[in-house]
Amino acid sequence: MEYRKIKDEDNDGGTISDDVENPRGKGFSVASVSNVPAREQSKWKRKSVVTLALTFLTSSQAILIVWSKRAGKYEYSVTTANFLVETLKCALSLAALARIWKTEGVTEDNRLSTTFDEVIVYPIPAALYLVKNLLQYYIFAYVDAPGYQILKNLNIISTGVLYRIILKKKLSEIQWAAFILLCAGCTTAQLNSRSDHVLQTPLQGWIMAIVMALLSGFAGVYTEAIIKKRPSRNINVQNFWLYIFGMAFNAVAILIQDFDAVMNKGFFHGYSVITTLMILNHALSGIAVSMVMKYADNIVKVYSTSVAMLLTAVVSVFLFGFELTLAFFLGATVVSVSVYLHSAGKLQR
Amino acid sequence: MEYRKIKDEDNDGGTISDDVENPRGKGFSVASVSNVPAREQSKWKRKSVVTLALTFLTSSQAILIVWSKRAGKYEYSVTTANFLVETLKCALSLAALARIWKTEGVTEDNRLSTTFDEVIVYPIPAALYLVKNLLQYYIFAYVDAPGYQILKNLNIISTGVLYRIILKKKLSEIQWAAFILLCAGCTTAQLNSRSDHVLQTPLQGWIMAIVMALLSGFAGVYTEAIIKKRPSRNINVQNFWLYIFGMAFNAVAILIQDFDAVMNKGFFHGYSVITTLMILNHALSGIAVSMVMKYADNIVKVYSTSVAMLLTAVVSVFLFGFELTLAFFLGATVVSVSVYLHSAGKLQR
Repeated sequence: MEYRKIKDEDNDGGTISDDVENPRGKGFSVASVSNVPAREQSKWKRKSVVTLALTFLTSSQAILIVWSKRAGKYEYSVTTANFLVETLKCALSLAALARIWKTEGVTEDNRLSTTFDEVIVYPIPAALYLVKNLLQYYIFAYVDAPGYQILKNLNIISTGVLYRIILKKKLSEIQWAAFILLCAGCTTAQLNSRSDHVLQTPLQGWIMAIVMALLSGFAGVYTEAIIKKRPSRNINVQNFWLYIFGMAFNAVAILIQDFDAVMNKGFFHGYSVITTLMILNHALSGIAVSMVMKYADNIVKVYSTSVAMLLTAVVSVFLFGFELTLAFFLGATVVSVSVYLHSAGKLQR
Repeated sequence: MEYRKIKDEDNDGGTISDDVENPRGKGFSVASVSNVPAREQSKWKRKSVVTLALTFLTSSQAILIVWSKRAGKYEYSVTTANFLVETLKCALSLAALARIWKTEGVTEDNRLSTTFDEVIVYPIPAALYLVKNLLQYYIFAYVDAPGYQILKNLNIISTGVLYRIILKKKLSEIQWAAFILLCAGCTTAQLNSRSDHVLQTPLQGWIMAIVMALLSGFAGVYTEAIIKKRPSRNINVQNFWLYIFGMAFNAVAILIQDFDAVMNKGFFHGYSVITTLMILNHALSGIAVSMVMKYADNIVKVYSTSVAMLLTAVVSVFLFGFELTLAFFLGATVVSVSVYLHSAGKLQR
């Protein structure tokens, strides 16, 4: 009874199967009741570490963006930077794999070669993000930048809905309530005097925002499905294949959007120290997102990035002298209650 | 088992004891299992009716206030109006009692005469409100009117805390979370471009706002304690004694604040049709509040008046051409989720 309870709680927490490889070569013995708590603890620890890493990287990302804007160095081409991010992630995955091959040898789970059946699904998230990023250029005909920031919170709802539909995982009613609160709280925290403009968004703008939210939610949930489909497969191999296609699709984006600029001014035009730091940060947070997908889930990812948004605002008070608004405090309160409710509302099975 | 469950749920809903008189002379037979659902249904119905009445009266109250301001007729003395409200409530309670005496005769429960022991606590809520209303004049030295509207939401928290401490009724953790959300949601819905000023409130202002919230919360919770202490006592008798002291304390307020104005300009100076409607409305909502205290509780009262605030805003769009802000939609979403969580989070006993 005790054992069954712990197992179920774990499944609730994200991993579909139990045969996840144990990192750092600790190994694990045949499941026995006495062994379960230690394994659960190690899983919980790993889940916490990747979640905290994602939260930290996401907040420092936002801070780097503010810093780069303040420094007035925002003239590099975004598509080339995105391409470099994917390349760096690819390289980091390969480096991690090389180390693992050295210590553990090449096994069925960590070999780089793959089957058509395994690899066929990997381009899909990258393709979805490409379409979403292209749409982004058109939505600004209907919404201004602060309005777009507000509308991006629709991602929270779309991720929850698609997580339920595609991964067929259940959230309790309290957790759904928490998810609606997360969306409302994040939006409230971002309110400013110009936010009301977003209510004047024409129908086309709303439709595009919803489509973009669905694309982004679908890409996230689909990545989780791909990664979790083969729980014993090494995450670095899975990442390698995800990022290879990321590189390919971003190369296409350079050709579509910035071909002339790259030809005339060069690939690295406008790059600075901050740009380099941003690329490094994006690469690391990208890997953290994959880890969260493997060891936790999209819901944890959404909470992690939302809390990061709040942390960023608080840190910006000290770094850039930003002033926190009453709306921020109210939004932060609602987000905090949402985090509490998400864990209090765990399905009792 | 079944019976015990229903009984407990009812206690949760508010009434301390079961020997509440059944209105409209339906009478109730000796409790038997088969009879319970009907009694519960009738209690639930009565609770719903008084709650809806309070919600409706509170929203129309706010609309009358806007209307009277728009009409520019806000020159009457507030203390005389308050005195008339108490007098009208007293008269309405007596009229209701007269009808009951005619049909049911004078009984131990509906006789007007009282003991010193019973009546000694009745002046307390009226005295607390008097102190709170006097403080209101001083807080404006530290906070502007929109800021005061924001700070008034502290009442929600103080009512919850005092309800727990004084009436010793438990709220579940989910219900506490819902209560924090109700406060945050109401405040969010009222945000406007000047709301951030409230963050600059000096310490004295905060202390006064908290003291006022405690006084108002204490008065509400104390009224509930008085009314519920004698569940079989007719509510109209209880109201009569509450309002008699309300009249007395408001007479004192006239002497303190408006004696000269009343002497020079007359008691009814500045009264108009709207003023009369407002007095009528305040009297009826005051009675509705007492009924909610008797048949439901302070928590229901707070939810009811919060929802009324949202309804008022929506109705004002049609009546006065107000525009709803994004903050309003976000706040209304949070309040709605809070209402859901309050009922979903009912203590399972």
